[in-house]
Order: sequence, then structure tokens, then C-alpha cells
Amino acid sequence: MSKPSIPKGTRDFQPLILAKRKFILKTIEIVYQAYGFMEIQTPSMENLSTLTGKYGSEGDQLLFKIVNSGDYLSGIDIENENSKSLLPKISEKGLRYDLTVPLARYVVMNQNDISFPFKRYQMQPVWRADRPQKNRYREFWQCDADVLGTKSMLCEADFIAIYQEVFKKLGINEFQIKLNHRKLLEATIEKAGQSNNFKEITIIIDKKDKIGEDGVKKELQVLGLSDDSISIIFSLLKINSFDADFLNHLKTVFSESNLGMEAIKDLETILSLIGTTNNNVVIDCSLARGLDYYTGCIFEVAPTNVSMGSISGGGRYDNLTAMFGLNGVSGVGISFGLDRIYDLMEELNLFSAQKFNFTNILFCPMDENTIIYCNEIANSLRQKDFNVEVYPSAAKLNKQLDYANKKQIEWVAIVGENEYKSSSVMLKNMETGTQELIEKHDLLIKNLG
Amino acid sequence: MSKPSIPKGTRDFQPLILAKRKFILKTIEIVYQAYGFMEIQTPSMENLSTLTGKYGSEGDQLLFKIVNSGDYLSGIDIENENSKSLLPKISEKGLRYDLTVPLARYVVMNQNDISFPFKRYQMQPVWRADRPQKNRYREFWQCDADVLGTKSMLCEADFIAIYQEVFKKLGINEFQIKLNHRKLLEATIEKAGQSNNFKEITIIIDKKDKIGEDGVKKELQVLGLSDDSISIIFSLLKINSFDADFLNHLKTVFSESNLGMEAIKDLETILSLIGTTNNNVVIDCSLARGLDYYTGCIFEVAPTNVSMGSISGGGRYDNLTAMFGLNGVSGVGISFGLDRIYDLMEELNLFSAQKFNFTNILFCPMDENTIIYCNEIANSLRQKDFNVEVYPSAAKLNKQLDYANKKQIEWVAIVGENEYKSSSVMLKNMETGTQELIEKHDLLIKNLG
Repeated sequence: MSKPSIPKGTRDFQPLILAKRKFILKTIEIVYQAYGFMEIQTPSMENLSTLTGKYGSEGDQLLFKIVNSGDYLSGIDIENENSKSLLPKISEKGLRYDLTVPLARYVVMNQNDISFPFKRYQMQPVWRADRPQKNRYREFWQCDADVLGTKSMLCEADFIAIYQEVFKKLGINEFQIKLNHRKLLEATIEKAGQSNNFKEITIIIDKKDKIGEDGVKKELQVLGLSDDSISIIFSLLKINSFDADFLNHLKTVFSESNLGMEAIKDLETILSLIGTTNNNVVIDCSLARGLDYYTGCIFEVAPTNVSMGSISGGGRYDNLTAMFGLNGVSGVGISFGLDRIYDLMEELNLFSAQKFNFTNILFCPMDENTIIYCNEIANSLRQKDFNVEVYPSAAKLNKQLDYANKKQIEWVAIVGENEYKSSSVMLKNMETGTQELIEKHDLLIKNLG
Repeated sequence: MSKPSIPKGTRDFQPLILAKRKFILKTIEIVYQAYGFMEIQTPSMENLSTLTGKYGSEGDQLLFKIVNSGDYLSGIDIENENSKSLLPKISEKGLRYDLTVPLARYVVMNQNDISFPFKRYQMQPVWRADRPQKNRYREFWQCDADVLGTKSMLCEADFIAIYQEVFKKLGINEFQIKLNHRKLLEATIEKAGQSNNFKEITIIIDKKDKIGEDGVKKELQVLGLSDDSISIIFSLLKINSFDADFLNHLKTVFSESNLGMEAIKDLETILSLIGTTNNNVVIDCSLARGLDYYTGCIFEVAPTNVSMGSISGGGRYDNLTAMFGLNGVSGVGISFGLDRIYDLMEELNLFSAQKFNFTNILFCPMDENTIIYCNEIANSLRQKDFNVEVYPSAAKLNKQLDYANKKQIEWVAIVGENEYKSSSVMLKNMETGTQELIEKHDLLIKNLG
């Protein structure tokens, strides 16, 4: 029999790692709820008609497709088929690729039951047939919140507050919330006289972190931009404080631009709502992610003390549900990257402050006859909300203590015939190594948390 | 554009239903943790080599199979293929069918890191390409706990206690925990001189609820059993109290049977551990589920005041990990059926006692200029752990109140120019309809929970 394995790019989660991951999820959830978001879940599999064409041709390739049940080749003249032509005939369902398209599908299907603005969060796995590599998985979790059905900038302000709150609760203190607005990019590129090249230019700008400013300059030259145009674009590729001074500066730069003034008005509204104590929010006009769908504000959050990519992102999209025929629903949303946040917190040793809900005390019977006695006390402690185990046999003490150690159980109660006869236990603290004979009734009122 | 839909047998979960489901999951989780179980998660997809052959040929048919990525037909002479022969060549992965086989795979892969007895719980969706029908889904949740690596009957006793505790916490008071032991069935059939027909006879017995006692009798006659043999088997097909009297009765019946005495010894140990107050535990010798794998105790729980199937089941299996080459690991486990428990609780109206973590108060700005003021108070309330929303625009009051009603928000704070100028809000209780002008500072100390 060959050794079992799991598919590449997937993971088992053992208890401690899972507990840490769930701590992150729970923290995000509590904050989402504090702002009135309600959770939904959607099926792991969607019809391919729902998914296909929503993520570009590359995305279509990365969808995991499920073979139709039963005699799936029935009626197909397979001699004339190849991998590509056969696929849509043998597969009608695929695994969820993200949480955004399922949201759009959900909203369109349930539009008559939903009260708008619709504020939902969703934290579920998604699947992509990407080439597995370090820190890139084929099954990973997304933690999204979106508001649909309002253009109010209060949503953007709420998301900035949510970022602050989540990272504060997680103990992540050094990070930057980068904010941009699609219309600022459009106004800049318009000012440079290059509106027709918007897509190409923003793709180049988006590569700034990878290829550097020189690289951007070169590629813009290759695209045919004049030095003047490049200089106008470069004037904006800086990180700026998000404050009234900078917005006033933008107003002078874009006084002639409708697009520019619209962006500035949105940013002013956000600033008035979040107040002036948000020192870690910056305007980064080079932030050019997601421009295939983002139509307004764009967010990205990255840690400043550890070199890694973004740990969250988001933005406003004016017509998300149009893909399913429902127009005029503006939305804005963010997504936390669970794996990145987990890695960051491990690197910064931030989980050490957390107490996970594992076993508080293990009873170690030294004699089969004491198991019933152990079990009775264990049940009394469970009534007091402690997590309690009784080692299920009178194995050697070393073996039982080893079990406690491996499970990181703080307390053990050793029970031999003497303890049983005296209605007590030998209580040992596994961290300090100290032990004391303690009466059963005293154990029941002891703080073992 | 055609209306979007979801694959048959799958479900979207809207917030209230999801919150109820998560309440059940959380309740089960807390009890599992109280008994020292730790959570793991395994990938949604497993290699088909892991899954195939573990669920019988019918189960193999019901596995959802994922098409290999890329040019999956490459190198295959498809002219000579049919649906069955082609499948293993184009699909190497399938979706998890249950949580038990992944557990066995996990234990074998991680055997050197696991401290036995290994007590794990796992609550994740599973997928089966079953024909969808009422209350049968293609994606559904299982909530399993298992102990591996010990033959101690303390595990069985713990699971009985877990049943009691979970259902008590959920408010489900009328249910029966049915207990049987494979060796009791074996001893009975041995006594009837029919050991060679064990499998056939237990399959017939297992149909008792469907075909009735007369049906069982007829089928046993067709199988060729004498009236005497049938009479011996029928003598056990009764539900009996789980107490010392009945166990003593069994001892006289099976005094000559090693198998029978082994079963009785196990049951006596369990009885000594759970004590005598478990009136809803019964011995049901006709309980014959899962005999393909269960080797010891068998559990089933069903409500007694509502007619529905079992809401939980489980049992002991002596050699679960043998399928992956690891012998000698005895295990015992149970699984709660989330969908059934949900349906039962809805039918008994048991969710009404629950308060879900939705929005406590909605601020209703009557004027765009008051949004900032609303938002400031909202943030202060969030610091006090309330869930708070600000309606994102100065829409008409009726529209905002309608939003609050649909989201079942108990409190709304209406803020027009007068309230703003007097540092107050008009606080309205949506359940009673009463409203009062209240100063901001008084609002911040009010109990809005």
C-alpha cells in the first residue's frame, strides 16, 4: 500500500495552527459585525455558466472543474474532441474561485428579499488551479465584506475604520493603509494626454514595486510617451499624507479636471468621516490594482515592519451585478488575506498573547479502579466550563504526563489509591513542575483557566 | 443573459439561517472541547487514490471528481475510451465524501507527531453526487469527533455524556440514545445457529423501521431461517433500559457465549461510568447500522417527540487506519447531522430563545450634514462592543426604518438638525415603538444589548 498524501497546494491544519487561524477569522468577524455586516455562505461549487468569463481567460484556466455525474460521455463523439473542446461537454460545475462573483450571483438571485444597502461578509475557502509554490495554495480562505446598493463614502470610511480595528485587535501595529481613486489615475493620465493608453499605463504603474521607478519610466518610453507626459505621471507616483493639505494641493493640480475633482470630493468626504487621527492612511496614486473592475476608491494594506505583500485589499466597483443582468448596484468591498496575516503574526510572535481553548486539566488514573472517581470530578469541572480530560487507561505515569505535555495541558491531577481514599488528587502544574495534594472540593473551586 | 442559479442539491445560506446553523456548530464545538477534543481541518479535495474503494462501489459513484488541469487528454487514445475507463485517466482528485477517511489518512500521515489517544473533532462540508431530494443535499456539513488509539470504554461513556450535554444546551430535551454492540448481534445470531448469515441477517434487521417486524420475519424466512432461529433473533429485537437489571438478564442469556460476555463487559464498564441518571439511554439490539466497519459499540440518537430519522450516530471501529497500512489503532467516533438538528430545532421553535449577534442600533441621519455626527457616536458605541450601523445617506425616514425592520434591528437613533444641535438623538425602540429624546452621553451608557 502506497503512503497516503494530499493534493499539492492543499493543506491539513493541525489543532494549534487551526486555532490561530480561527482566532484571526473570529477577530475579523467581530469587527465586521460591529459595523453591521451579516454573514452569508454560498455553495463550494457553482455552475460554470456563473464562473466562466468572470476572471479573464487566465482565470478560466484556473477554475477547478467537476466531471458530470454518471455516463458523462454519453452522446459525445469523442473522436473529434480535444481537451479544450471536450471540457464544457463533460463538466458543468466548478469550484468557487473567489467570493465576489458568488456574491453578485447571490444578490441577483435574492434581490427581492434583500434590503439594500446590503452589507454582507463571507469567510470561506476558494480554489484555484495555480501552480503551487511557497505561500501560494490551491485551496485558501478569503474573508470578504462588501456593501452593495449605495454610493455613500461612509462605506469607504467604515472600511478604513475596520482595517484599523482588526489590526489593532490582532496586535499588528505597524502597517499602512494605501488609498487611491481610479479617477485620480484617470485625471493624471488625461493630464498627460494619454487617456487612450489608460489600461497599458496603469498596468506599467502597477509593476512599480517589482521593476522600480526606472523600470516604469523605461516601459512608458517604450509605450511611446513623451518626457513631459512621463513627468506628469511621475509627479503623482508618490506616497502622500491623507490630509486636508494634500487634498488642497490636488485641487490646484486638477482644478480643470472633472474626473480629478470628483475623486477629490470623494476623498474629502472620507477624510471628514475618519477624522484626523488616522496617521497610517496614505494616498498612494501609484496604487493601480484591480482596475478591471474598480471604478472608485482602491485600498491596499501592507505591514511596514516586515517585507511582504499586501495583507488586505479592496475597492469600489460600480456595476458588479451587471454581469448577471442587474444594473445600477454600486458596491464597495474589502478582503483580508488569512494566510498572509497568519504568516505575519507568526513572524511578529503575536500569537503568544493568545490563550486557546484547549484542555485545562488532565486526570491521570494510576489504577483502573480510580477512573470512575476521576470521571466524576472531571464532569463537575466541566459543569464549571473547564475543558477536562481523563486519560482513558491506567497507563504509566510518564506516558500520561508525556501526553499532557504534548497537548500543552497546564494542569494534571494524578489519582492513585491514596488520593482516591482521601477524596483528593495530586495536582501538578506542568509549567512550574510544582505539585500539591488537594482535596476534591478545593479542586472544584480552584482557578484552572 | 439567463438568470443565474446554483447547482442542484446545493444551498445559499442567508444570514439568519446561517447564524442558527453556526449556533448549533458552536454548541457542539464547546462540548467537544470540554472533553479534550481538538479541531483539525483537512483539504476539500483528496487524491482519488485516498477516497476510492473506501465507500463501496456505490460510494465511488457518488464521489465528485475534478478534471485534471491543463491538457488532461494528452497521451490518451480517447477512441477506445468510455465514461468509466476514461475517468481515472482524466481525474486524480475528488471532493471529500466524509470526514472519517480523511481522518484515517491524516493520522497515518502524521502518526509520528500525534500523541495517542488522539482526540480530534472536525466540522466541515462533505460532498456526495446523490440524487437531490427533500432534505438530502449534495453539499452538507458533518460534525465528527473521534478518539483513536485506545480501547477504553471511557470514550464511549464520554460520547454518551457529550450527546446529553449538546442536546441539553440546544434545548432538545426529548430524545433517545440507542446503544448496541456488534458482539451482542453476533452472539444472538450465533445462538440462532446462523453465524454464516451474519451480514444478510443484520441487513434485514436494519430495515426494521422501514418494513416492520412482519417484514423482517418474512425476509428471514426467505433467507431460510427456521422458526426457532427467528424466534431467538426476535427475542433481542426490543428496546431495553440500559441498567444493571437488563445487563444481568443478558448475562443469563449469553452465559455460554464468549462474544456475548465480551459485549456485556463493555456495556457494564460504560454503565459504571455514565451513572444511573441517564434515563434516555437504551439498549436497542436491533440497531445494526454501519456493520461494515463498526466492531464494538454502536450509537444512534433520535428525537422522541418529532418523527424524523437519527440526528447523530457513531460507533467503534477497531482498524480504521488499516486502509492506509497502519494496524492496531482502535477508534470510536460520533457525528452530528447539522441539517437534521437544524430542522428539528426549527420545528420545536428552539431558536427563539437565541439572541444572534446582529446590529444593535441603526443611526438614521435626516440630513447629510448629520452623518459625521452619527458616525462619531456610532464609533463610541462600537468601542463598547455594540454592533452599530449608520444609514449611509439621508434617505427618507420610512426607508431607513424599513431597513431597520428588515434587519431586525431593535433600536434606531434618528438624527435631524435639532438632535444634532442639542447633542442628542431621538431613540426609538422598533419592537415597542416608543421613542424618547436622549442626550448623546446618556445614549453611550444605555444598555442596547
